[in-house]
Amino acid sequence: MGMALGTLDELPLAYRAALARNSLAPLWPMMRDVLPHGGPRPVTLPHLWRFSELRPLLLEAGALTPVEKAERRVLVLTDPGRGAGAMQAAPVIYAGMQLLLPGETAPAHRHTPSAARIIVEGEGAYTVVDGEKCPMHRGDLVLTPGGAWHDHGHAGTEPVIWLDALDLPLFVYLEGSYAEEAPLQAPRNRPDACEAEYLASGLVPSRRHGRAPAARYPMLRYPWARTEAALRRLADLGPSGEATELDYVNPETGESCLPTLGFTAMMLRPGETVAPARRSTSAVFHVVGGRGTAVVNGERFAFGPADTFSAPVFADITHAAAGAEPAFLIRIHDRPLQERLGYYEERPRS
Amino acid sequence: MGMALGTLDELPLAYRAALARNSLAPLWPMMRDVLPHGGPRPVTLPHLWRFSELRPLLLEAGALTPVEKAERRVLVLTDPGRGAGAMQAAPVIYAGMQLLLPGETAPAHRHTPSAARIIVEGEGAYTVVDGEKCPMHRGDLVLTPGGAWHDHGHAGTEPVIWLDALDLPLFVYLEGSYAEEAPLQAPRNRPDACEAEYLASGLVPSRRHGRAPAARYPMLRYPWARTEAALRRLADLGPSGEATELDYVNPETGESCLPTLGFTAMMLRPGETVAPARRSTSAVFHVVGGRGTAVVNGERFAFGPADTFSAPVFADITHAAAGAEPAFLIRIHDRPLQERLGYYEERPRS
Amino acid sequence: MGMALGTLDELPLAYRAALARNSLAPLWPMMRDVLPHGGPRPVTLPHLWRFSELRPLLLEAGALTPVEKAERRVLVLTDPGRGAGAMQAAPVIYAGMQLLLPGETAPAHRHTPSAARIIVEGEGAYTVVDGEKCPMHRGDLVLTPGGAWHDHGHAGTEPVIWLDALDLPLFVYLEGSYAEEAPLQAPRNRPDACEAEYLASGLVPSRRHGRAPAARYPMLRYPWARTEAALRRLADLGPSGEATELDYVNPETGESCLPTLGFTAMMLRPGETVAPARRSTSAVFHVVGGRGTAVVNGERFAFGPADTFSAPVFADITHAAAGAEPAFLIRIHDRPLQERLGYYEERPRS
Amino acid sequence: MGMALGTLDELPLAYRAALARNSLAPLWPMMRDVLPHGGPRPVTLPHLWRFSELRPLLLEAGALTPVEKAERRVLVLTDPGRGAGAMQAAPVIYAGMQLLLPGETAPAHRHTPSAARIIVEGEGAYTVVDGEKCPMHRGDLVLTPGGAWHDHGHAGTEPVIWLDALDLPLFVYLEGSYAEEAPLQAPRNRPDACEAEYLASGLVPSRRHGRAPAARYPMLRYPWARTEAALRRLADLGPSGEATELDYVNPETGESCLPTLGFTAMMLRPGETVAPARRSTSAVFHVVGGRGTAVVNGERFAFGPADTFSAPVFADITHAAAGAEPAFLIRIHDRPLQERLGYYEERPRS
Ligand SMILES: [Fe+2]
Ligand SMILES: [Fe+2]
Ligand SMILES: [Fe+2]
Ligand SMILES: [Fe+2]
Repeated sequence: MGMALGTLDELPLAYRAALARNSLAPLWPMMRDVLPHGGPRPVTLPHLWRFSELRPLLLEAGALTPVEKAERRVLVLTDPGRGAGAMQAAPVIYAGMQLLLPGETAPAHRHTPSAARIIVEGEGAYTVVDGEKCPMHRGDLVLTPGGAWHDHGHAGTEPVIWLDALDLPLFVYLEGSYAEEAPLQAPRNRPDACEAEYLASGLVPSRRHGRAPAARYPMLRYPWARTEAALRRLADLGPSGEATELDYVNPETGESCLPTLGFTAMMLRPGETVAPARRSTSAVFHVVGGRGTAVVNGERFAFGPADTFSAPVFADITHAAAGAEPAFLIRIHDRPLQERLGYYEERPRS
Repeated sequence: MGMALGTLDELPLAYRAALARNSLAPLWPMMRDVLPHGGPRPVTLPHLWRFSELRPLLLEAGALTPVEKAERRVLVLTDPGRGAGAMQAAPVIYAGMQLLLPGETAPAHRHTPSAARIIVEGEGAYTVVDGEKCPMHRGDLVLTPGGAWHDHGHAGTEPVIWLDALDLPLFVYLEGSYAEEAPLQAPRNRPDACEAEYLASGLVPSRRHGRAPAARYPMLRYPWARTEAALRRLADLGPSGEATELDYVNPETGESCLPTLGFTAMMLRPGETVAPARRSTSAVFHVVGGRGTAVVNGERFAFGPADTFSAPVFADITHAAAGAEPAFLIRIHDRPLQERLGYYEERPRS
Repeated sequence: MGMALGTLDELPLAYRAALARNSLAPLWPMMRDVLPHGGPRPVTLPHLWRFSELRPLLLEAGALTPVEKAERRVLVLTDPGRGAGAMQAAPVIYAGMQLLLPGETAPAHRHTPSAARIIVEGEGAYTVVDGEKCPMHRGDLVLTPGGAWHDHGHAGTEPVIWLDALDLPLFVYLEGSYAEEAPLQAPRNRPDACEAEYLASGLVPSRRHGRAPAARYPMLRYPWARTEAALRRLADLGPSGEATELDYVNPETGESCLPTLGFTAMMLRPGETVAPARRSTSAVFHVVGGRGTAVVNGERFAFGPADTFSAPVFADITHAAAGAEPAFLIRIHDRPLQERLGYYEERPRS
Repeated sequence: MGMALGTLDELPLAYRAALARNSLAPLWPMMRDVLPHGGPRPVTLPHLWRFSELRPLLLEAGALTPVEKAERRVLVLTDPGRGAGAMQAAPVIYAGMQLLLPGETAPAHRHTPSAARIIVEGEGAYTVVDGEKCPMHRGDLVLTPGGAWHDHGHAGTEPVIWLDALDLPLFVYLEGSYAEEAPLQAPRNRPDACEAEYLASGLVPSRRHGRAPAARYPMLRYPWARTEAALRRLADLGPSGEATELDYVNPETGESCLPTLGFTAMMLRPGETVAPARRSTSAVFHVVGGRGTAVVNGERFAFGPADTFSAPVFADITHAAAGAEPAFLIRIHDRPLQERLGYYEERPRS
């Protein structure tokens, strides 16, 4: 174990050339790169994207590029560890701030990656997913699962901004990412399932035998009003100093609301500091409301409403709420994927 | 197929005696009894238990027998198809009306059958299940799953009556029914999980890695107020003439709230008639509110609040609400058991 | 807890009559019968059915009753705890010895209960299950799952005897037992799946996407030759004094081969005594080969080839092989059902 | 849809600089790269690695680098679509040919990626996995699942060569790849589970209640002799012109033998041509025996024993066996991962 492994330079040039000719490469000079000892060596760097800085740039994009030439007018949050233009904030997480101006639409389409959006600002926008029309209010989580047709519209009067989160990098990595387009959908004339069918925990529409099984994604919108109320109640009762967290799940199965990305709503009580275990997942945190600080691997971020920050795998993270109000965040992570791989892990802080 | 099978009488007496001596019996004379052709031959008969008749008898039981000598003061709803004293209303369903007087308690105990109770009348009672104290209001469904310690108390001033539903007959049949007793439990000082943790559909407490898994039965009380509100909303949106039904499920898994018995809340809109498919399950219907009629295999029951009626397997059932108010029922059935056996089936009406 | 519960006799006659008129019954006088304290009170009694005594009676049935008048010429093993004519050997287990004479057939039919048969004597019989023709050799286990069409035929020259095991009592209890008939099936012209597709542990036919999913019961025959060879190998390697046991499972899922009944092949090494934990299941043991003794709740059975014996729930059982040969048994039990109910349990010996 | 999207060049330099300063990037110029229309644009190129060319280079590696300086003496099969030194043959598949010389050992270690090896040449090597000693014969598949301790040894007299297949690229992508080391393990003194416990399809060791659950990976070796015999039998019976394929599965659950990588044994009958549907998985094919040709997206590979070739996602592949003998291949693919993501798909040939 102690001995240094051989390097590429130690191999004769002719041998190296013969390997290259045959699409072969020696493992041992690369071994410690792909299988480091003791723990992973993440490339991802923690970063804070301040909404106050991002918002003007996003509105400027609206002015610079008509939606027809952008299709989706999005500024992608690029991991500084990967260099300019990286289409991801963490290994599995694409996060982008999208702007929709009054009257604009996004064409109906579907793609292999799954998406969820968290509404940041503005009223009047909606997403239609497989015919189900979901209104979009601040803090709402709206799903567009992989393979589901979706389009967006905006019947309001002010710009709408939302945060898109997708497992796009995973599908790019798998060489399985692609999209298809279609005409705009005719939405059904009824409220979305969270208003019609999934109104109380533990109650689901009775299954009709012989009919098609329940939709794989029966509930597409998780209204923030419910989430905040549930967090506040949980915080009243739970022990202090411990995270107050709710996972977004499929109400028919209890599984994560999307196959690879997980979404966890967090509340920090006023003045509270929470220091969770290190997790094998990376994460993007979006601030729905309140102010505070996050220290990620020693880097300090002061956050406020609509800010977004990231953390790599196995990061030491400390969250604290500032001021007299609680802070509310949604953590976007890849725990569902890691659990499907049998790999998810938590470790004591370092 | 046409030929009649041999009968017991056709066999020589000496042969029959030799069989009996050897604990043997010929199949063919019994064949059509245990395996009838074309469909099952249920023993269970439909029946309506009127609360107006049952209630005085139950209160009289309170006067006749001190709770110490009754342990649980219950009048069992006995299937008339099985003769007097049958401890069941349907093959898998024990249903009994229980009376608890102010200040009375039921000793802490647990048993292999699973139970749920539906509160019928009176305020102030509670059930403690594995330390979780569940208040009991009219229409609430409160679970005491098999193996869970539970006791009851009554801090109110009026008699409390509830309907117990258990899969006791199944465990008696399996020769697996028994109970154990213990001292009263010290309840935890916090609201039960439906008030603390399961406040919104699709949101569950974030799972902590490495801790014990979520309790097998994380939510023990389903408050009627939520159920009725959800039914009314669903009825506003769903198609008329079709059952408005919600299943009670485990909010962590989407599975039925108990392993063998299922509970389905039903609403009939004012004046509405619903004629569902015939089901392979038998059922007991309890009326939480409203009035109407049910026709079960041609037998007509006019029902009102707190009444209870039963239906055998594959029954033709027609429900209708009477008057200007909707009717609300909870259907207790054995669909979860039948689905675990791969046997549940629905058929067109005969 | 100490106080005796009130009895039926203590209640006024008029009150008892009023209850009966209303199809009601007081729980408390029956309470200890249906929910005994501390453990179940099984009705089932252990019993040994000697093949040497059963065989002549079965052959006599062949002489007394033509197959047309018997449909299936079976002597049912009746639990002595239930009295003459009981169509079961244990709560969930029907067991019957069936005789098929050369040239006889059993009509094609299907039923809600699931069956398996263990071939006891004779060559040349076969079962066709949903078109799959399964030859039947001594010790083979052949499945006819609930709902599957099946018929039997006999192309040999000597009587064939097999042991049928069904969960018939469960379906009778559920009021769900019935049968349907059809013309004889035309078997497919290929060996059954155990000869064609399931030839090695851990290898299954590659699943074709978009085609119908694998049959729910992909392998219908478990040849004894393989079972015995695997048991002998396992016995060579495993620790002495501990049961050498293999469960029959679905090779596509690892689940029990039928939904409610389990089948476990056992080997006792020459001279070995095995004293397993007490199980919450009842069981019927069939001796495929070898001799020995079983002591069930203190009752001693000397067993030899083709004998069958039963044991109630939570029985203390001690098995011992006699002579220089190992003993081979197949244990039929209801562990799959009990595990689906979350109720299966093992306890130390008493 | 028809309009070209805006490009990076069309944006003002100052705007682009402001974005870069804020770790932001516009989506629309990159949109078609990460989400192409109509189907994925794989980077992976099909390639054939001839064993006759690879073997001398691998033996030369043995001469050039002592095992101490190589740890594992492996030549990695690098996808020509990714450029020199790529540590992968396809998105999720690392494949490398490993050489072990007589007397050499590989140190005990474990890592987050899962591995399987297929033995190519030489006798006498073995792998110890969590104490289970697996001998390695030509064509055997031996698993070292993620997290399992493993070491290799070689008690024979000739070089041993095997093909390692790992989901290493996935764990590198997830920033979760790492290894740990430990002293050599003391193997248990009994044959591995495929020789001891999993000897017949549909038979598994009886589960002991209350004990630790069956190992997650109960069978670590799949002997080629069994696989080839089962393939030949299946080919005798199955329809011609259709792939004769067996999947390697966990005998306790029927799931794929590893969480993300799938292994499928294929047989081509003498002279047979097989043209399967296009699959969303990429694949690496290893030739265990026989000769033939594969045409992958129009590129023709003549293959013989121990050759290995690759195919990208949705490739058109045609296999044909040459000569009088059947050809046997093992296909390594990522269908288990894709099925866990709900993404696996097959399409008609183009
Ligand atoms: Fe989209
Ligand atoms: Fe109870
Ligand atoms: Fe039958
Ligand atoms: Fe390794």
